[in-house]
Amino acid sequence: MSVHVIAYDTSDPGDTGDLMKVIACFDPQRIRRLALLVKTEGNSDVNDFSREYAMLSAEIALSKWGGSDLLKRATFLFSTGCEGAMTPFGYLFVDEEGGPSGDASRKALAIGCARSRDLTGSEIGTPAHADVVAQTVNDAMKDAGVGADDVALVIVKTPVMSHVASAKLGTAVSKRITSAYSKAVGALGAGVALGEVDRKCVVQEAFDVDLNLYARRAMVFSGSELDCVEIMLLANRVGAGGDLRIETGRMTDCIDAEGIKNMLRAAGCAFDDRGRLTDPEKIVALLIKAGIAPDGSLRGCRTTIKSSHLDMDKHVRAAVSGIVSSIVGTCRNFISANTVHQAPPGGGLCACIVRAP
Amino acid sequence: MSVHVIAYDTSDPGDTGDLMKVIACFDPQRIRRLALLVKTEGNSDVNDFSREYAMLSAEIALSKWGGSDLLKRATFLFSTGCEGAMTPFGYLFVDEEGGPSGDASRKALAIGCARSRDLTGSEIGTPAHADVVAQTVNDAMKDAGVGADDVALVIVKTPVMSHVASAKLGTAVSKRITSAYSKAVGALGAGVALGEVDRKCVVQEAFDVDLNLYARRAMVFSGSELDCVEIMLLANRVGAGGDLRIETGRMTDCIDAEGIKNMLRAAGCAFDDRGRLTDPEKIVALLIKAGIAPDGSLRGCRTTIKSSHLDMDKHVRAAVSGIVSSIVGTCRNFISANTVHQAPPGGGLCACIVRAP
Amino acid sequence: MSVHVIAYDTSDPGDTGDLMKVIACFDPQRIRRLALLVKTEGNSDVNDFSREYAMLSAEIALSKWGGSDLLKRATFLFSTGCEGAMTPFGYLFVDEEGGPSGDASRKALAIGCARSRDLTGSEIGTPAHADVVAQTVNDAMKDAGVGADDVALVIVKTPVMSHVASAKLGTAVSKRITSAYSKAVGALGAGVALGEVDRKCVVQEAFDVDLNLYARRAMVFSGSELDCVEIMLLANRVGAGGDLRIETGRMTDCIDAEGIKNMLRAAGCAFDDRGRLTDPEKIVALLIKAGIAPDGSLRGCRTTIKSSHLDMDKHVRAAVSGIVSSIVGTCRNFISANTVHQAPPGGGLCACIVRAP
Amino acid sequence: MSVHVIAYDTSDPGDTGDLMKVIACFDPQRIRRLALLVKTEGNSDVNDFSREYAMLSAEIALSKWGGSDLLKRATFLFSTGCEGAMTPFGYLFVDEEGGPSGDASRKALAIGCARSRDLTGSEIGTPAHADVVAQTVNDAMKDAGVGADDVALVIVKTPVMSHVASAKLGTAVSKRITSAYSKAVGALGAGVALGEVDRKCVVQEAFDVDLNLYARRAMVFSGSELDCVEIMLLANRVGAGGDLRIETGRMTDCIDAEGIKNMLRAAGCAFDDRGRLTDPEKIVALLIKAGIAPDGSLRGCRTTIKSSHLDMDKHVRAAVSGIVSSIVGTCRNFISANTVHQAPPGGGLCACIVRAP
Repeated sequence: MSVHVIAYDTSDPGDTGDLMKVIACFDPQRIRRLALLVKTEGNSDVNDFSREYAMLSAEIALSKWGGSDLLKRATFLFSTGCEGAMTPFGYLFVDEEGGPSGDASRKALAIGCARSRDLTGSEIGTPAHADVVAQTVNDAMKDAGVGADDVALVIVKTPVMSHVASAKLGTAVSKRITSAYSKAVGALGAGVALGEVDRKCVVQEAFDVDLNLYARRAMVFSGSELDCVEIMLLANRVGAGGDLRIETGRMTDCIDAEGIKNMLRAAGCAFDDRGRLTDPEKIVALLIKAGIAPDGSLRGCRTTIKSSHLDMDKHVRAAVSGIVSSIVGTCRNFISANTVHQAPPGGGLCACIVRAP
Repeated sequence: MSVHVIAYDTSDPGDTGDLMKVIACFDPQRIRRLALLVKTEGNSDVNDFSREYAMLSAEIALSKWGGSDLLKRATFLFSTGCEGAMTPFGYLFVDEEGGPSGDASRKALAIGCARSRDLTGSEIGTPAHADVVAQTVNDAMKDAGVGADDVALVIVKTPVMSHVASAKLGTAVSKRITSAYSKAVGALGAGVALGEVDRKCVVQEAFDVDLNLYARRAMVFSGSELDCVEIMLLANRVGAGGDLRIETGRMTDCIDAEGIKNMLRAAGCAFDDRGRLTDPEKIVALLIKAGIAPDGSLRGCRTTIKSSHLDMDKHVRAAVSGIVSSIVGTCRNFISANTVHQAPPGGGLCACIVRAP
Repeated sequence: MSVHVIAYDTSDPGDTGDLMKVIACFDPQRIRRLALLVKTEGNSDVNDFSREYAMLSAEIALSKWGGSDLLKRATFLFSTGCEGAMTPFGYLFVDEEGGPSGDASRKALAIGCARSRDLTGSEIGTPAHADVVAQTVNDAMKDAGVGADDVALVIVKTPVMSHVASAKLGTAVSKRITSAYSKAVGALGAGVALGEVDRKCVVQEAFDVDLNLYARRAMVFSGSELDCVEIMLLANRVGAGGDLRIETGRMTDCIDAEGIKNMLRAAGCAFDDRGRLTDPEKIVALLIKAGIAPDGSLRGCRTTIKSSHLDMDKHVRAAVSGIVSSIVGTCRNFISANTVHQAPPGGGLCACIVRAP
Repeated sequence: MSVHVIAYDTSDPGDTGDLMKVIACFDPQRIRRLALLVKTEGNSDVNDFSREYAMLSAEIALSKWGGSDLLKRATFLFSTGCEGAMTPFGYLFVDEEGGPSGDASRKALAIGCARSRDLTGSEIGTPAHADVVAQTVNDAMKDAGVGADDVALVIVKTPVMSHVASAKLGTAVSKRITSAYSKAVGALGAGVALGEVDRKCVVQEAFDVDLNLYARRAMVFSGSELDCVEIMLLANRVGAGGDLRIETGRMTDCIDAEGIKNMLRAAGCAFDDRGRLTDPEKIVALLIKAGIAPDGSLRGCRTTIKSSHLDMDKHVRAAVSGIVSSIVGTCRNFISANTVHQAPPGGGLCACIVRAP
């Protein structure tokens, strides 16, 4: 098995032209796992349906190409918000069966996917929800054939209730169902599975409050369109085929360009003595989750990130998009915001997949 | 005469507390020129009144401190939009009379200000408007005691008509009165005065169309609150007192971090072999005007900068704020967007004032 | 043939559950024409894809139910923007073949649909585009079996170029391709076909400028997703089956509640002596297009409709939704804005379909 | 004493031209109480400073006209948000001393104003805060010379903490400081003073939760710019001079046009047999507070009022502005949203001041 990662462009959320071009070289029968990690370009508010539109369009196109069976082996993570220097685009992940197996002396990129049972409204946002996340991460590790130490990045998709659904449940419940809350639960559940968070600390009172409790290798996304937890896990595994590797890094805050550069250095990328990346073509994928301190400040300066008409995530994505694209020279980077329980308050997480022949 | 430049914070647009603290060390009688260059934090749409509110608040505070006469020697440039990693703040420029005069063998920062007569509705957006700008820049050069070659940066404030006013004039006129159009005229007028633009090319047909016609040292702002052109000009003059210098640089596009770093290098700042600035305390002020290509693309990638619910300037300011603050380590930077006729299409202009003892 | 009109709800733009419930009573083989007139709930800015998502979802559902052939006999008009007291919903129009034919002594609702050839980029926004609209309206009259005098309402869907497409064509062309411009051309073309506008007046210079030139029975919508003109025409035809009738009315401005009430009175609805509608159940569909005066004023008062961070259409739709729903007692009304060349400046057009047994 | 109420326009939030024109006929020495009730036209988000700008501008103008002493006898209520068919404007209330006293056999409009001590951060949003509101309402009744039964409308201005201030206090406190919460406390406090709400029910757990607990004659506004509670109270008092009267009414929901008409009828306005107002000139002022049901529905229809990129208050104000202006024929109406604890869930409150000679 060997994992391939290919970036493809979209001219609008419904466009699958480039996706179908890049997937054409594969044989659908030999695809063990297929995953799409996509940024769509809606307004990223509650009435943004670009994600749903893009997902439906991709499903139709993939199903036409590879049969509806292929969809059962596929995982989709569509995230909206392409502010600033960010291209609306997607990463296609294909885990191909057969082919030359990898060198036993080195690790290469492996992918594992898993999906939980559906959660009920009374479970969402509780420690039981976090346990389901942990279990699903374990399932994904098994799928990838790796242990917790091999894991570089866990991408968690976790359900929230829609406003209308939560209004029916009344105010007592409504605090459990915000997107931030659902992300908190998802991160802590993943942290337990990875051995980074003590299960005993995963209590109702800690969610979205005890921000010093956090996972170190999880990026969490929430959506009201699903009722189950979905996991897409990236790891480096001994014996995996292909020439890709993944590296994870940290950002101390959302303008920590050095954190991103250090991750690229650790992944084997080279910089000249002016700090300029000299081998950008090595980078196959770049993923960032960046946050902002609870008081909205940055390096001791007040910002309007948490006090403007724009949601804080838009500020963060746009600012980070400038930094990342100025380093790597392309706007095809997957940048997301909100790092509650995924990094220390205000901090961030970054990861890159590089070609390492 | 020696020019002082001090950054001050605002807790909201009406806050003048920090301004009054930093101005307290000066004697109002000895202030030859006072200028405020301020970023305010409104929504930066047509119904953003943070600029007017901040200006009124500053006028009241300064007038109370230094008498209403001081306002006659003062120039205000308030610009709205603090998206991303940008602090709402201001630069106070004080040109102090008396004191030790500067070394005749070296240049130091000088400031010149000028204001034109009021323009009529039928002049705004015509070559006659550009001529008024050119004349006012000449007046500002005289005020600063410099020639065109000494000028590092001309900050132009130029009137636009409000929507209501233009609706009264009818559709024939309305295309002359947009903010972009007014900026175009302001930039070309400044370019003529600086010897960068041929007066013969400054024709109605070129405005906002012939984008290869541009000034090289002008940042232009428009506002419906004024009827005249105001110029604030920064230069390095032989014999000027003080220990400040200004340097101007270019950005090839809005993610050109190297362009900003090269300007800082030219200004005498030092970087280590990882490309990190080692003497950020040298930088007294940083000003950026950044643009986006007419088709909204960046390094060959599609962006949503010109095709989203957010005005393109917000995307650009937020992305640039990330880059600049990641380089200099502070969010107190004056970042503005729209470079029509102020740089090649998609390009930008940057300037810094540094302490150079 | 008899036309049925049924309102259906959507829980989100991708929801077709209620549509499929209400369509279940028909036999797809006997459907001569099917039309959907739908309001979707995106942000109604350039990055709102709720319309495209809803259309794709409806196509999939209808095609599964009635076969892909049914789509060839179907016309879709999806319009975004449900601000204020407006439900996201759709009207299903079904023209059923067979059944008892109508009384020759009275008129009943008839529907006609037509689609033009694809327009080229150089045609869009020119008088040639208007001619194509006029021809397609004529085709739709034929399809409905009516003459111009029978027509109550022509719904015109006309293409605009996307921003990216127009940027490639350059600034000379870009003024031709705005949504307002495309609507202007669509309205005037329809007006020519209906005998309301003199073809000689349909010249380039008049578009979006000579606002006293307008059609009286056309509602125009533009979209970048289509390259052809589509017409959905509603008329009262002698001999048509069914018990529905359509009535058209005028609004002098967007707060002209009396204009709406007068239309309802003309359609046979009853009001008590307090001006309250007593038979709201008679109303099967209500359609409004409302505008605002070029200077943004209303009854001599300044408004912020044309001078705020919100597009003017959002202000208008929300205000009108309040008026209409307060009259008819339901929020299921199709309300749209921008009446360029579809009514006198600031005026509006309204129509209702009522059960008239 | 007699109260005068005059509407005045503003060309922008800083414009006081019309205010100074209408106030010119008064003698500042004889003004016992002056109040401004103003709608400003910012984006009505957290970074809207139109209110602060308008207030500062009015203070400067009034102080110049009537001396700084006049400001001590003045109460300002500036509210932002003029969506839809609403003019940015103000009502000037002047309570003039001297003059012929009113007829002892009839009631006329009286005004009372009061201001509390400053509240501390630990008081805001607690029952203690509500007690301060109740006491200040009592003070305002004394100032107006009326009892609770005479009161028609209490306008409450109550402090909220800014986001930055609340972030410093930590998450435990942050739920107490939202605008909705502060309004809840303000309404319940006023309700206690008016005898409409039982003091025993005013407990922490009820705030913003027990929505069946509500005042009947209070409109509440919150602002982070003040630390105290301010009350402006309108009543009909036996013996008051002048020819104005105030009437209060109820709206069952935000599209309840009949509720508004019934209030106007009760105030003595006449309607013809088509439900059209025949004596609009009688209306001197019109004030509305309208809400939306917790689930966002209206007359059984889903709306997007609570599930769009626009704050629910903008939807409500715009929709109501259409209804009100279509009834009274002018856009100069004071319309505000959010009726938490000021009306039953989804309901509203309306009031009018009419000339009743």
